[in-house]
Amino acid sequence: MYKVDLNCDLGESFGIYKIGCDEEVIKYISSANIACGFHASDPLVMYNTVKLAKEYGISVGAHPGFQDLAGFGRRNMNISYKEAKTIVEYQIGALKAFCTAHGIKMNHVKPHGALYNMAGKDINLALAICEGIKEVDSDLILLALSGSKMIEAAKNIGLKCANEVFADRAYKEDGSLVDRSVNGAVITDKEIAIKRVIRMIKENKVTTINGVDIPIHAESICVHGDNIKALEFVKDIKKFLEKENIKIAPLE
Amino acid sequence: MYKVDLNCDLGESFGIYKIGCDEEVIKYISSANIACGFHASDPLVMYNTVKLAKEYGISVGAHPGFQDLAGFGRRNMNISYKEAKTIVEYQIGALKAFCTAHGIKMNHVKPHGALYNMAGKDINLALAICEGIKEVDSDLILLALSGSKMIEAAKNIGLKCANEVFADRAYKEDGSLVDRSVNGAVITDKEIAIKRVIRMIKENKVTTINGVDIPIHAESICVHGDNIKALEFVKDIKKFLEKENIKIAPLE
Amino acid sequence: MYKVDLNCDLGESFGIYKIGCDEEVIKYISSANIACGFHASDPLVMYNTVKLAKEYGISVGAHPGFQDLAGFGRRNMNISYKEAKTIVEYQIGALKAFCTAHGIKMNHVKPHGALYNMAGKDINLALAICEGIKEVDSDLILLALSGSKMIEAAKNIGLKCANEVFADRAYKEDGSLVDRSVNGAVITDKEIAIKRVIRMIKENKVTTINGVDIPIHAESICVHGDNIKALEFVKDIKKFLEKENIKIAPLE
Amino acid sequence: MYKVDLNCDLGESFGIYKIGCDEEVIKYISSANIACGFHASDPLVMYNTVKLAKEYGISVGAHPGFQDLAGFGRRNMNISYKEAKTIVEYQIGALKAFCTAHGIKMNHVKPHGALYNMAGKDINLALAICEGIKEVDSDLILLALSGSKMIEAAKNIGLKCANEVFADRAYKEDGSLVDRSVNGAVITDKEIAIKRVIRMIKENKVTTINGVDIPIHAESICVHGDNIKALEFVKDIKKFLEKENIKIAPLE
Repeated sequence: MYKVDLNCDLGESFGIYKIGCDEEVIKYISSANIACGFHASDPLVMYNTVKLAKEYGISVGAHPGFQDLAGFGRRNMNISYKEAKTIVEYQIGALKAFCTAHGIKMNHVKPHGALYNMAGKDINLALAICEGIKEVDSDLILLALSGSKMIEAAKNIGLKCANEVFADRAYKEDGSLVDRSVNGAVITDKEIAIKRVIRMIKENKVTTINGVDIPIHAESICVHGDNIKALEFVKDIKKFLEKENIKIAPLE
Repeated sequence: MYKVDLNCDLGESFGIYKIGCDEEVIKYISSANIACGFHASDPLVMYNTVKLAKEYGISVGAHPGFQDLAGFGRRNMNISYKEAKTIVEYQIGALKAFCTAHGIKMNHVKPHGALYNMAGKDINLALAICEGIKEVDSDLILLALSGSKMIEAAKNIGLKCANEVFADRAYKEDGSLVDRSVNGAVITDKEIAIKRVIRMIKENKVTTINGVDIPIHAESICVHGDNIKALEFVKDIKKFLEKENIKIAPLE
Repeated sequence: MYKVDLNCDLGESFGIYKIGCDEEVIKYISSANIACGFHASDPLVMYNTVKLAKEYGISVGAHPGFQDLAGFGRRNMNISYKEAKTIVEYQIGALKAFCTAHGIKMNHVKPHGALYNMAGKDINLALAICEGIKEVDSDLILLALSGSKMIEAAKNIGLKCANEVFADRAYKEDGSLVDRSVNGAVITDKEIAIKRVIRMIKENKVTTINGVDIPIHAESICVHGDNIKALEFVKDIKKFLEKENIKIAPLE
Repeated sequence: MYKVDLNCDLGESFGIYKIGCDEEVIKYISSANIACGFHASDPLVMYNTVKLAKEYGISVGAHPGFQDLAGFGRRNMNISYKEAKTIVEYQIGALKAFCTAHGIKMNHVKPHGALYNMAGKDINLALAICEGIKEVDSDLILLALSGSKMIEAAKNIGLKCANEVFADRAYKEDGSLVDRSVNGAVITDKEIAIKRVIRMIKENKVTTINGVDIPIHAESICVHGDNIKALEFVKDIKKFLEKENIKIAPLE
């Protein structure tokens, strides 16, 4: 039987600033990537988000990012590999405290934003992140862009990993995502997006922006819960995956 | 045989800003309270400080404080009890990651600065902190002002705790410290200070600023390693304690 | 003819975090208190908010607060008077740069949140703030709680000031606001609230929570634009004030 | 008569963290670049540093950087041009408040660290910075790497500018600095460094790392006051410049 994980970023509120529809989207996903206070969130938000994930029986992962609240961790920062390793360790540890407090296990780590993108292309940055994860908890699963340098780094050092795909994004022939600024980078037709995802899961293939089929490994699908439209999309993905007998289940 | 712990705040540097003589003072102490990135330190400093403590075989504790880098955690902040609990959990978790990375155990938690002072007098704040510690690791030892509300809170909820005393500070009759702004609050005569400490350990007594003997429990002595003079004092305390057959050993 | 200012806090968004309905509420007010990056806002938000105020011909003031983004400047912080003075100077200067960039004049300064509340009761903190304002621009008007220590401090050092009143809050006999935690502290009946405001303006009187009339000076009314209900209230206040021939105009 | 400015970064302390020998180096320079709270400094440090500069009659400039205290503004950050413009405006405004408070005029702006380096090569970033400066105060002088994109941008938009040179750094043929990681990038022989500087001033020439003479415009020399050795170098530069009848004077 086919199986896939649905992951979503949660717990991105900060102080009085609220963001996302966590309490809605959590009903449809299998894994939550929880922000750790560097690019978003704060200790109280983290505490409450882990609690929420526990209530819904959702698998929990750390979502470490650059220390850039003002830029939501989306701005490339030129930090050293040693710093990269230690900011990942710090953030995993912080979230782990809340998992322990709520009596649940942390399951995975997905780097956020610019850190995710940079490490997807820089094997040394990817290795630094993977070493940080492994030093803190060698059972954790790295969740990263399918076929990226992060997946390569995890395999190199013997860290479990899972390949992430995007339902609504166009791919290049090398397996990387087409930049959002390019025409056609985002797939807005819901039906096409869902068909692509199903093909990725069942056939391990996706058609690139220039019409070529490339191999892809879809262990987890990234979804969003920021607004009503995103929520509708998540519901639809879930419905169609189940119709196709694809089981939605956390990473393992 | 008498026994006491010598504890010192370590790892308070931040980015390019260096502070303290960690590599010197660590030779003479038994426990390090390591800053966790809220009032001082950063992930790289924490990583290196835990490594240093491991090399010297020093017992490691978390030193959580208010999120106030600009004020070094020394400015009272009116945070909610729930926030207090979660900032303590966050910081313990972060430091724990580095302990795990280096293969050592975290032994204790000592709140820092204004958090230490406020919680010493506010039983609800003290309870919030103790609950945070217990939820993350029920084996941790709270290190707090001898006879303070924090010690009371730890006992209330069944958390291990240890009473801290100050060699160079005058005491009031209620067991609290005389405010630094008061004349005579700081004991500058090294010999007197050391005699006081030895009496606290052997007789469980200290003479207050107004000449009365009060009971005191000295399980750990707070020392400083900021400058040459502080270092000399630590060396002297260590020497005289050993001369008096008082064993210097971490909390347990 | 009677005259009053309607002031509202604007520009409280931060990075990707949006807050408030600035573009709506600005249509009904005469003065904007613009956050300066310490408790809320960032340089880009400040730039755009000053631009918006200019477009609507609204008078602009700085809204300096504690450096506590996580607590939105609402948590009391025990900073020194010298720090208080300099954080006010810093924030006024920063906002002034954007006023200059847009070719408008800054008109007033209203301290925010915990800084506003603490300075309302502490004459030395109030003096530190007033001195900071005066040193940076002696033409600025301090906007502060009617009858508070801030008003007293401004008068002491010869700084222009304006008394602020709250339409929806109950008053104590000493002229201070009833704490929000007390029953009856917030006046929810819109009609009563508006009648109270009109009486404050026309008769310089308000009835306290325990039924006594006290003198009050209403030069500016604090309104909010956070949500639809708040917006409705602002529209109503404006409508009724105009019906009573009370002119809405900025401070001068 | 020949003339040159000696500029040094001052006011880089933060909270309890002290850095630099400001009170010493200020005796030998003509211009101070004062940190503005983003990569270093805080309001109280800024207040005191402007005061110090006034006491010594030193010309004051703003030293804006990336909002990256943890990295001291030395890590490249991928911010938008609009953000770049507004963070420069914000920081200039903040420092200006302290200049006004002390009754002195701000004379120049020198971007810091990674912002300086990135803008030296990116004309659009350079233009954003220059526009920010001009919008806040069109009399300010941009101080930037001799022959860099920043100088070009300032000329493009009609902003005054001054070319900065480095006494102890090797140059490439395109006028840019040899990266510190390259062998020979830093000139450690004091005598050679000083001779180079004098030649830059008198002949407008410097020999590159590969032995070619290139034109260079030396209006200001960057010096450091971090340690005893740096201080000695500043004293020597000053002495030799005066011996060569080169007047040390602020930018104008």
